[in-house]
Amino acid sequence: MRYELYYWAGIPGRGEFVRLALEEAGADYVDVARQPGRGGGMDRMMRLMDGRRSARPPFAPPFLRAGQLLIGQTANILLYLGARHDLAPKNEAGRLWAHQLQLTMADLVQEAHDTHHPISGGLYYEDQKREAARRDSAFRADRIPKFLGYFEHVLAHNKRSDGFLIGRRTSYPDLSLFHLVEGLRYAFPRTMRRVERRHPRVVALRDRIAARPRIAAYLNSERRQPFNESGIFRHYPELDAKK
Amino acid sequence: MRYELYYWAGIPGRGEFVRLALEEAGADYVDVARQPGRGGGMDRMMRLMDGRRSARPPFAPPFLRAGQLLIGQTANILLYLGARHDLAPKNEAGRLWAHQLQLTMADLVQEAHDTHHPISGGLYYEDQKREAARRDSAFRADRIPKFLGYFEHVLAHNKRSDGFLIGRRTSYPDLSLFHLVEGLRYAFPRTMRRVERRHPRVVALRDRIAARPRIAAYLNSERRQPFNESGIFRHYPELDAKK
Repeated sequence: MRYELYYWAGIPGRGEFVRLALEEAGADYVDVARQPGRGGGMDRMMRLMDGRRSARPPFAPPFLRAGQLLIGQTANILLYLGARHDLAPKNEAGRLWAHQLQLTMADLVQEAHDTHHPISGGLYYEDQKREAARRDSAFRADRIPKFLGYFEHVLAHNKRSDGFLIGRRTSYPDLSLFHLVEGLRYAFPRTMRRVERRHPRVVALRDRIAARPRIAAYLNSERRQPFNESGIFRHYPELDAKK
Repeated sequence: MRYELYYWAGIPGRGEFVRLALEEAGADYVDVARQPGRGGGMDRMMRLMDGRRSARPPFAPPFLRAGQLLIGQTANILLYLGARHDLAPKNEAGRLWAHQLQLTMADLVQEAHDTHHPISGGLYYEDQKREAARRDSAFRADRIPKFLGYFEHVLAHNKRSDGFLIGRRTSYPDLSLFHLVEGLRYAFPRTMRRVERRHPRVVALRDRIAARPRIAAYLNSERRQPFNESGIFRHYPELDAKK
């Protein structure tokens, strides 16, 4: 089965969490909105989101076509892929724990986004810069350390290995945490230089995931899109620490 | 099995989505932080969140003790309860669709919260009132209609019944949508009077859930806590429409 991933072309965004799982699984997939010509592109994505054509439209990208299924919400897609591609524990306790970690990361993603859009996603950053500066200070001072401290703790207390969040093998939350570190480094390089020192296990996990053969190949391919100032993780120097 | 629900005492908050599912299921549960004396209260909740005592602590309330499981993240708890108490479809497509709707509601909950806390959860509302007024305007103008319009569409296009979000029976997203309408009415009564007219199916679902025997009994009990200005849905008249 060839999966169809639907997500805004041009940014890693939330779609990246899904891409990393598909890549690590070695799954056959097409990133629909990035395809040129008929049958691809943003038009096709927008048609699927159009309620006039679907009884169960997704509220927003990303969403994944998997045969007859059309699955929306990033964490929900990963719940599905995790079970099918051995990227999550099989037992109930492990499955729920993986999903819980993923949902906690989803909260961090939303908070990172809102540092540059604290007022409205319908306005430009330039129209909410003053508010962004305030929100950003609180995010860097309180939230980045709290979230990374939490994942550091989970890694330190994983009884079976301190190299993965769960058990002795890679699961989808590991892949997502890799991308979170990448995104935070891109958006807040000065802050992260300081914060990372206190979270060695998180950094080691990031490195371990980056070195996995399929992920390393992906990161070197054109399928990987760079961060930029249209996505969730944006680098506005005025929003990072001063030094 | 007696479930233990852990959530901040004194507000409905995110815990309410879990309470409604437990009540509709007729499940045996204790709302731990609201119990007086030893073995209850906020202290017990805080101990479980303390990483020194747990390898898999929840990041934040609510969380649910179910035998040996300790499950965090509201939508994750509902995923678990939905499967066990017949509050979600049994087939994969239905289960994923229910969870997708719940996660979309979780996004709305976060946005509703951030109308009064656009800068930081660590600051008082009074310290971010100016920013709150701006965020609130965008939320009322763009986001409430977008979310409620989406759920109205889902209700209208449910092939098996337009009285429930999924199939012909109550599922956990129905219970959550009931609470969302209640919360939005409390926080934005003037806005909702106008918006509700365009969303008759959402309003009818709210009424249908309120009339279910177990839910009606719960709403009249002391187990139900009123909305107030410490929770997610807060009524600050200056944040509602002017008339």
